[in-house]
Amino acid sequence: MTSEIKDFLRLCVHTQTTRAWDIKACIENYAAAGIHGITIWRNVLENQDLPEVKRMLEDFEMKPVSLCRGGFFPSVSFDKRKDAIRDNLLAIEQAAAIGAPMIVLVCGADPEQSLERSREQIAEGITRILPAARAAKVKLAIEPLHPMYAGDRSAVNTLKQANDMAELINSEWVGVAVDVYHLWWDERLKKEINRCGRHHHLFAFHICDWNVPTTDFLNDRGLMGDGCINVPEIRSWVEDAGFRGYNEVEIFSDKYWATDQKEYLEKIKQAYLEKS
Amino acid sequence: MTSEIKDFLRLCVHTQTTRAWDIKACIENYAAAGIHGITIWRNVLENQDLPEVKRMLEDFEMKPVSLCRGGFFPSVSFDKRKDAIRDNLLAIEQAAAIGAPMIVLVCGADPEQSLERSREQIAEGITRILPAARAAKVKLAIEPLHPMYAGDRSAVNTLKQANDMAELINSEWVGVAVDVYHLWWDERLKKEINRCGRHHHLFAFHICDWNVPTTDFLNDRGLMGDGCINVPEIRSWVEDAGFRGYNEVEIFSDKYWATDQKEYLEKIKQAYLEKS
Repeated sequence: MTSEIKDFLRLCVHTQTTRAWDIKACIENYAAAGIHGITIWRNVLENQDLPEVKRMLEDFEMKPVSLCRGGFFPSVSFDKRKDAIRDNLLAIEQAAAIGAPMIVLVCGADPEQSLERSREQIAEGITRILPAARAAKVKLAIEPLHPMYAGDRSAVNTLKQANDMAELINSEWVGVAVDVYHLWWDERLKKEINRCGRHHHLFAFHICDWNVPTTDFLNDRGLMGDGCINVPEIRSWVEDAGFRGYNEVEIFSDKYWATDQKEYLEKIKQAYLEKS
Repeated sequence: MTSEIKDFLRLCVHTQTTRAWDIKACIENYAAAGIHGITIWRNVLENQDLPEVKRMLEDFEMKPVSLCRGGFFPSVSFDKRKDAIRDNLLAIEQAAAIGAPMIVLVCGADPEQSLERSREQIAEGITRILPAARAAKVKLAIEPLHPMYAGDRSAVNTLKQANDMAELINSEWVGVAVDVYHLWWDERLKKEINRCGRHHHLFAFHICDWNVPTTDFLNDRGLMGDGCINVPEIRSWVEDAGFRGYNEVEIFSDKYWATDQKEYLEKIKQAYLEKS
């Protein structure tokens, strides 16, 4: 049985969902709409004073859920792998500075090498940044991405692979982000969500929908109810696995970005209550 | 170790790969290029006299490898499921009429119902048409499609699912088509190819490449060597599993369709020798 959603206490919106807004507009508008969870994408932090962002979050009683995103560890180039480590250490500093307790990792893949090799480099990369994450008290969430991104965005393409990796690294600071968009098609999903919960690795839950047809590889995600994903069912699995965190709305959509973002936020709230 | 390809004896081209050509042009040009395997898409058979097509194939010493495609069984509508059965029975007649020993099944999915329900309807559909296939001596190859097509093109998205289904149906007339484009990302691929061979279900092998980046959901496939798929490695797994059939080049590509198709056929031959 899926629990009914009655309020917005566990609703979080990704700043990228309302891409037109800068960090200030996101904070003000989310708070005004009664939404108090926010996952902050790093692009909106560029040229910002991070302590000032932290103060603003506190002033508006906004809870930073995650910083999005770190990762992109694999490369055939040693220098690029080193650059990735440096960038992930910077992300940890940024997360700590704004008070975000977690970083979502889009793990990366290099089409010049095998997916196995890329996965080894991902595990190596996470292990390398783990001491800094622990010291800063910032969790790292491995996000498996849809197999259509295996070419160059992530060699971690199923929840099973993310679970395997989190269990291999075996740290309370490393877990998994479950995104319905990436994982809905997998017949092992329920079982792997349960496994993820049992190992205390279920760190985040992202929702949106899969449009039919989908016309763009990146920016044609649907609002919950627009497409074919049974979001309530997957949410019930996540909750049965013990997850009590935020339901994070992460939608990249040229269609919705072209609309009035305040009206869109109201649509998100409605879809959250009725279709999630 | 991957065996070296030294000739075109096992090369087959899908008519859709050279979409600009009608069936006559495909047969003439493939034969002139020294290619004697052809998988025929049903669109090129529209308004054709099928016995005449069969004679032409024989005259040019062309071996029809498959008819492409049947399937699309699932629907929430009973009438649509009945229509699909009727269309698949027609496909069996067409295959028999042109002397094609096999039909490739793009199984279908209905976004209005769960993938599990769609898979049940696929198995039901195949079971329904199986007596006609057996009587006509036409094999049926379940083709698992990439998870990005789970919304409306196929609820069978991994080789494991196709193997499960073929073993459940358990007929020498029902097997699996392995296409590198759909399956390359799956860490279980080698194991499932081996399983497929052991059960004598490895009926067909399709090759092309995954472009990085890929810009279109349907028509941006690469020629072998263009992208990130290790085609020779997957071919070695297929051959180790006992497969001795044709290597079928199935490429949907707006880019290549816009070029001179005879020159393209030469590029295919070169990529087949050097990158497959």
